[in-house]
Amino acid sequence: MLHYQNRINSFLSKQIEASSNENSRLKQSMQYSLLSGGKRIRPLLVYATAESLKINLDTADYIAAAIEMIHAYSLIHDDLPAMDNDDLRRGKATNHIKFDEATAILAGDALQSLAYETLANTPADAPNVVAMIAKLAQLSGIVGMAGGQSLDLMAENKNIGMADLQKIHAAKTGALLQACVQLTTELKNNLADDCKIKYHLFAEHLGVAFQIVDDILDVTQDTETLGKPANSDTKNKKATYPSLLGLQNAKDQADHHINKAYHLLENIEFNTDMLKQLTALILQRNH
Amino acid sequence: MLHYQNRINSFLSKQIEASSNENSRLKQSMQYSLLSGGKRIRPLLVYATAESLKINLDTADYIAAAIEMIHAYSLIHDDLPAMDNDDLRRGKATNHIKFDEATAILAGDALQSLAYETLANTPADAPNVVAMIAKLAQLSGIVGMAGGQSLDLMAENKNIGMADLQKIHAAKTGALLQACVQLTTELKNNLADDCKIKYHLFAEHLGVAFQIVDDILDVTQDTETLGKPANSDTKNKKATYPSLLGLQNAKDQADHHINKAYHLLENIEFNTDMLKQLTALILQRNH
Repeated sequence: MLHYQNRINSFLSKQIEASSNENSRLKQSMQYSLLSGGKRIRPLLVYATAESLKINLDTADYIAAAIEMIHAYSLIHDDLPAMDNDDLRRGKATNHIKFDEATAILAGDALQSLAYETLANTPADAPNVVAMIAKLAQLSGIVGMAGGQSLDLMAENKNIGMADLQKIHAAKTGALLQACVQLTTELKNNLADDCKIKYHLFAEHLGVAFQIVDDILDVTQDTETLGKPANSDTKNKKATYPSLLGLQNAKDQADHHINKAYHLLENIEFNTDMLKQLTALILQRNH
Repeated sequence: MLHYQNRINSFLSKQIEASSNENSRLKQSMQYSLLSGGKRIRPLLVYATAESLKINLDTADYIAAAIEMIHAYSLIHDDLPAMDNDDLRRGKATNHIKFDEATAILAGDALQSLAYETLANTPADAPNVVAMIAKLAQLSGIVGMAGGQSLDLMAENKNIGMADLQKIHAAKTGALLQACVQLTTELKNNLADDCKIKYHLFAEHLGVAFQIVDDILDVTQDTETLGKPANSDTKNKKATYPSLLGLQNAKDQADHHINKAYHLLENIEFNTDMLKQLTALILQRNH
């Protein structure tokens, strides 16, 4: 996976460098968060889907970068004092600590703009590009990521059940992981509907498993391993899979969704080796 | 102009209603700012350009709405405590006062997403839609609106000269006004380059005049007339055209750019009556 991580890091670096001729404070702030490493799970998911469908990686670069920019903007805004108020991200000071709140807000805003500019530049047929843009906007907006973050904040200090928790996570985390697969399948003309559905269902199960593992890591790993504050869900009085189901049941649920994800991949007629490897990575990660 | 204001208000209302089935706090917050009236100068500029080029208004609706959504998101974020810290906007409580800071940040974020979703749905040829999206993203991002706001914040409490002031305004306010004209001309296939340039130069002069008038109103009108705090530039120690040039010279500068704008319109071979009316309105406004 290192090859693909290097690939996206290099592409992101070029995109942000080209975004402005001036080395302004805003640009530095955008670079700080966008190029701070991270596991790059979303780009990996884009590349893995592209490899499966034999879509040119030079095209997939733009999708991977646009989605990672959306992810980076959401992390900057989520970390703000008015939101999760976190000081640490990927083992480094969060954007508003390193710079200032106003710059962090604007860096997030400008990264969202850059995501759409990048996606609009995808070397692909215009109708497909328009469809990808509409989908990313939907999955990251009010019914997707931003809406999920709002529900998540409102659920703090409240007793919520599994149905609400699933709804929050499907929007807050699931939607953008879905975007990785859905945007990429959009580029494969003549892909049979039932095959497309398998890819999308795979992304759905992967997203749920990803979030459960995230919740589990928050209570089982320390701050140094995570690169962000451990036990932050408990601190913010957030309902999680372990808090609602207990740790063992949460692990079983993660296994259940991972198995569903694998099963779907095995029934896809294209080569899904990289998607399988990525699924394994997500389950086995420790941060 | 009332006809067009009603038209965009009705279209925006439908778009935001359709954005989500649930009447969530986030949706209410987005509606609160997007449907709070305002002069709708940017949509009017889109419609006036569309009328001039005989572009279907049912198509122009999407451009007008997308740009107004970007404008609305920028106002919500600009008003935040970490930025301009304003309590009053269009005679009403600002978004973070009415709701809360986290909701205001997310409402801005989701309005930006909705802008691109709306623009992606424009009933026009896909290559033109892609070009419009790339342009809006550029003009509202790091080299446009967001970059200008960042420069503006950094210039507070500093002695800056006219060159810096012009640069800040061209990005912060001018870029989005440019977008109104540039996106709309993008839809006119086979428009001669020299004619397109006249439209774009017109928008440039209009943008400068608009900002000078804005600076003048801040020091000459009271809070009730403005619907936002008067003298906020002085309070925030911001350089303005009147503070750098004196009030009369600033007025003369505004006249100069308005005259340039009129002159360009008179040399365009299409009907520019509505563009002229709008230019007059912008100069004569008192809030």
